[in-house]
Amino acid sequence: MNAVLQEIERVSSTVVELARSLPTATLHEAAGRIGVMPPAIKPIAPSMRLCGPAVTVDSPGGDNLWLHRAIYTAQPGDVLVAHVRGEYEWGYWGEIMSLAAQVRGLGGLVIDGCVRDGAILAGFGLPVFARGLCLRGTSKDHGARGFVNFPVLFGDLTVHPGDLVAGDADGVVVLPRARAAGLVEAAVLREQKEAAILERLRAGERTLDVYQF
Amino acid sequence: MNAVLQEIERVSSTVVELARSLPTATLHEAAGRIGVMPPAIKPIAPSMRLCGPAVTVDSPGGDNLWLHRAIYTAQPGDVLVAHVRGEYEWGYWGEIMSLAAQVRGLGGLVIDGCVRDGAILAGFGLPVFARGLCLRGTSKDHGARGFVNFPVLFGDLTVHPGDLVAGDADGVVVLPRARAAGLVEAAVLREQKEAAILERLRAGERTLDVYQF
Amino acid sequence: MNAVLQEIERVSSTVVELARSLPTATLHEAAGRIGVMPPAIKPIAPSMRLCGPAVTVDSPGGDNLWLHRAIYTAQPGDVLVAHVRGEYEWGYWGEIMSLAAQVRGLGGLVIDGCVRDGAILAGFGLPVFARGLCLRGTSKDHGARGFVNFPVLFGDLTVHPGDLVAGDADGVVVLPRARAAGLVEAAVLREQKEAAILERLRAGERTLDVYQF
Amino acid sequence: MNAVLQEIERVSSTVVELARSLPTATLHEAAGRIGVMPPAIKPIAPSMRLCGPAVTVDSPGGDNLWLHRAIYTAQPGDVLVAHVRGEYEWGYWGEIMSLAAQVRGLGGLVIDGCVRDGAILAGFGLPVFARGLCLRGTSKDHGARGFVNFPVLFGDLTVHPGDLVAGDADGVVVLPRARAAGLVEAAVLREQKEAAILERLRAGERTLDVYQF
Amino acid sequence: MNAVLQEIERVSSTVVELARSLPTATLHEAAGRIGVMPPAIKPIAPSMRLCGPAVTVDSPGGDNLWLHRAIYTAQPGDVLVAHVRGEYEWGYWGEIMSLAAQVRGLGGLVIDGCVRDGAILAGFGLPVFARGLCLRGTSKDHGARGFVNFPVLFGDLTVHPGDLVAGDADGVVVLPRARAAGLVEAAVLREQKEAAILERLRAGERTLDVYQF
Amino acid sequence: MNAVLQEIERVSSTVVELARSLPTATLHEAAGRIGVMPPAIKPIAPSMRLCGPAVTVDSPGGDNLWLHRAIYTAQPGDVLVAHVRGEYEWGYWGEIMSLAAQVRGLGGLVIDGCVRDGAILAGFGLPVFARGLCLRGTSKDHGARGFVNFPVLFGDLTVHPGDLVAGDADGVVVLPRARAAGLVEAAVLREQKEAAILERLRAGERTLDVYQF
Repeated sequence: MNAVLQEIERVSSTVVELARSLPTATLHEAAGRIGVMPPAIKPIAPSMRLCGPAVTVDSPGGDNLWLHRAIYTAQPGDVLVAHVRGEYEWGYWGEIMSLAAQVRGLGGLVIDGCVRDGAILAGFGLPVFARGLCLRGTSKDHGARGFVNFPVLFGDLTVHPGDLVAGDADGVVVLPRARAAGLVEAAVLREQKEAAILERLRAGERTLDVYQF
Repeated sequence: MNAVLQEIERVSSTVVELARSLPTATLHEAAGRIGVMPPAIKPIAPSMRLCGPAVTVDSPGGDNLWLHRAIYTAQPGDVLVAHVRGEYEWGYWGEIMSLAAQVRGLGGLVIDGCVRDGAILAGFGLPVFARGLCLRGTSKDHGARGFVNFPVLFGDLTVHPGDLVAGDADGVVVLPRARAAGLVEAAVLREQKEAAILERLRAGERTLDVYQF
Repeated sequence: MNAVLQEIERVSSTVVELARSLPTATLHEAAGRIGVMPPAIKPIAPSMRLCGPAVTVDSPGGDNLWLHRAIYTAQPGDVLVAHVRGEYEWGYWGEIMSLAAQVRGLGGLVIDGCVRDGAILAGFGLPVFARGLCLRGTSKDHGARGFVNFPVLFGDLTVHPGDLVAGDADGVVVLPRARAAGLVEAAVLREQKEAAILERLRAGERTLDVYQF
Repeated sequence: MNAVLQEIERVSSTVVELARSLPTATLHEAAGRIGVMPPAIKPIAPSMRLCGPAVTVDSPGGDNLWLHRAIYTAQPGDVLVAHVRGEYEWGYWGEIMSLAAQVRGLGGLVIDGCVRDGAILAGFGLPVFARGLCLRGTSKDHGARGFVNFPVLFGDLTVHPGDLVAGDADGVVVLPRARAAGLVEAAVLREQKEAAILERLRAGERTLDVYQF
Repeated sequence: MNAVLQEIERVSSTVVELARSLPTATLHEAAGRIGVMPPAIKPIAPSMRLCGPAVTVDSPGGDNLWLHRAIYTAQPGDVLVAHVRGEYEWGYWGEIMSLAAQVRGLGGLVIDGCVRDGAILAGFGLPVFARGLCLRGTSKDHGARGFVNFPVLFGDLTVHPGDLVAGDADGVVVLPRARAAGLVEAAVLREQKEAAILERLRAGERTLDVYQF
Repeated sequence: MNAVLQEIERVSSTVVELARSLPTATLHEAAGRIGVMPPAIKPIAPSMRLCGPAVTVDSPGGDNLWLHRAIYTAQPGDVLVAHVRGEYEWGYWGEIMSLAAQVRGLGGLVIDGCVRDGAILAGFGLPVFARGLCLRGTSKDHGARGFVNFPVLFGDLTVHPGDLVAGDADGVVVLPRARAAGLVEAAVLREQKEAAILERLRAGERTLDVYQF
């Protein structure tokens, strides 16, 4: 058993680019209201957005060695999606790791814990989604077990490597790789329909009538 | 029994306009330290402020049909004040509803739950006060029961339709309609006294002496 | 027993100035990963930073009389570090107190509770670190007991008067007065090493190799 | 619109009696892992069990008038299932109401809030499942809106009037009325299979082999 | 300023004895719904009850020296009512202190934190009301400040030395010393009325009619 | 890399037997106040106690396959100590697993999550320490990664396989294997000293004098 899976299948880059401009809420709705990551995970700067294939990380709490390993497992455009086993209040990621990820061309980080160097990270090009900022330093324990690119559970949501991950100010949504193309297409249509509804509302119609509630 | 009360008495527009420029903390203090909504309810953009008569909404959790109904019950200037029965983590309100409310000239939304399309809403003229952002979509269940313009409990604070609702970066305060005129007058006086105290502090006096602590 | 200690020993101003430009995370790491204040305490405006000797305040919950007293006990540059006994949701501090502290030349406030007048405080020069904003007004109870400049516990961290307090977007760190000079020197060295590592990463090296993980 | 629905369809008494002796965990598993009420709702005495058709109550927070109404809407054997809109810490139910319910022959109470007179209730025959005990008294506000026998949301679980409700030390499970007969039959089979497995384990077999994990 | 007040006025022993047999919920209701201690404070064995005059303790978090001092400040029958400044998870009290308190004839302990030696304490005659059990050991720091017999805040409830404290399975209620005699009398009357109502319910009357809801 | 380590070193059975009769609080104090497991982990029946060498389990959230594996990795007397990555509210363990563990002669289970079949487990000889009861069923996912007998983090406490685990009503304490013999000896001495102090208190001495506070 190898704890780092180097080869994974990814959602196609065409689908990623199509999804990139869509709101996470639209992706979620069009997909049948699935894929919501824990809502406490938010961008550390409100304007940050991300979209890309997931490289999953299952990390021991209070340790970030496996996040370093994941940076060098991921390919350009990939988004690290990390679980830290319920131990939120540590600074798992900071300036050095954001630079390392940026040099590698990664698409960003989603972590179910905190990060640090928040003021600096907010000015980097690399989008970081986290539970908040915490300055407490992690260890790098070579004995503690972790994984890269195995399925990871976030509450009742399982994220598989290669899934489509998208994040904006509303939070993070994950769509299954195999179904992503169709779901993103549906989201594009939904976005168009919503634009038409916005027009009708501006023209004075009521939502109660538009939607026939 | 009709679940939507169309006709309510409102705090007068004169009082609303007088209150509009006052800090919520001053309104709260001048009123005898009453009317604090749950402090987790904050503007989704820090500069948002609101002030107006309350249209109360008592909504089933995870559903936003009654919020749609409330938009079309409210009059221009009214502020929707919505309870969602302890089910916070849903996106009860978004771009379409904010536009619908803006077209109707409403004064804003206060909701004891989350909203979505946060980046867009932050740029709208319509002030939104909520517990946070969440992309999870709500249902529109015609069987679930809700109310518009009946008294609603937020913890130990009861909000009645027509009460004066004011919000700023510090949170939201609600003053009883019948007493609002006198309380807002007292708040204006308090604001003037505080301005005088700020002058004295700038001139070198100590708070311990100014207040005779 | 006097509840306000006027004379305390302080970390030297040389050390304070050296520490002022360092990230809190670096001070924490260089000091052996100590001194983390509760992570929920954050600057009320993201760009606020503070650094100075601690004047400790142990205040009754829901009361701010002892904070007034502390303003006039502190010397220019001092940072008030206040515990409010687990009663977070009150507006312990606002415009008048920030002005009073600024007039006295204080270095800022760190409080394990909420403050109010948030929009105004964000524009003041005086940095305020708190759990959040809350408009609920405190009392000034002359019967309730508090202390200024005695050791105060924040969870498992004891802050002594005169300790070095530093805060930035990541949170607040406190280093013991007697050891502060050496720890800050170590932090300067660490900061230099990190700068060199950032250079190596920009040049294409991997963190796994740089750190020999 | 009438806020109290007198006539509802109920799960049959045959199914109720069949389910009565089954563990809630078995009902939940056999039904495909559905129907879990919020796990914080537990019997106020560990040996209490209940089983019966649901009479749903949607009550204003901090008020128990609608619980009184529900007692007299319910039929013998019915279980009141009450939501109190996220306002847990009130004593919604006590000795008088337990006696009233017992006189009426009701099957018990499940409430997503607290009750009081805990020591007395523990000795009554009427099973009470709640979040805990709290002595704070509720109001009886004739203006506040509530419902009896409309669908009620508990987080992501909707309970309909007439559904099968079962509770034991592990918590409370709710199965949809229309499918209850089949699901309870499946649970009986599962219980028999588990008994056989327990025998095999006592005989020395390993779960890894029995289940072919 | 002396941190331990030896002489306090107490609610009379006649009132204490009258209150002793009454449920806390009845005392709370008859007093106009006041005096509820944080509901998480419960007896460590369900059958424990206490009633007596309060000796208040304001203790540093994670330290129990002031509790020792309070044991020897209190008189027979007094109940220690201790605040530990929001630091719940420590074992502030155990076998040795319960024995010391019992030897002194004290009426019990109410603490807004945890205790340890739970299995042993459950078998002692001395009633202990706490947030739970925790084995983590406290320090005895002679530098940390505390108080005995000064007013103490528990959330929005102030407890003064000498107030009437009563506890049972439902929680703890505190009535002001000066008004306690009248309030307890009212509670006795209320208890008698409730007994009559219970009779009427047993005879088949409905609460809706008895209370004329 | 093998995810299940069969061979581990264990604290000696002599030390285990010596520790078995000691309170967890005494072990914790004598060891220098270390080793406290999260205080929410408590015996599911108040009289349960356990003591033995740890077999550590690092399990995916919402899955219990690795717990099954651990039952058959452990030796008689071993205590399973399981982390479930912050996903508490699942029924990770029940009647079948308790029987399987009992047949194998295990010393008990400590899990940082919930279990089910609580009424039955309370009557078994096998002690179970958990965060509570929850009927929600887990999966058995052969793709999800877990570990048996690697170091596991519980907050800031690392548990190694073979460490000494002891639990009683106050909670669970873990002492490092290599130092356990000396620490348990110190605990025996401390217990004897406490017995002597209890005698002195019964004879009328004050804790303030006995401890020279």
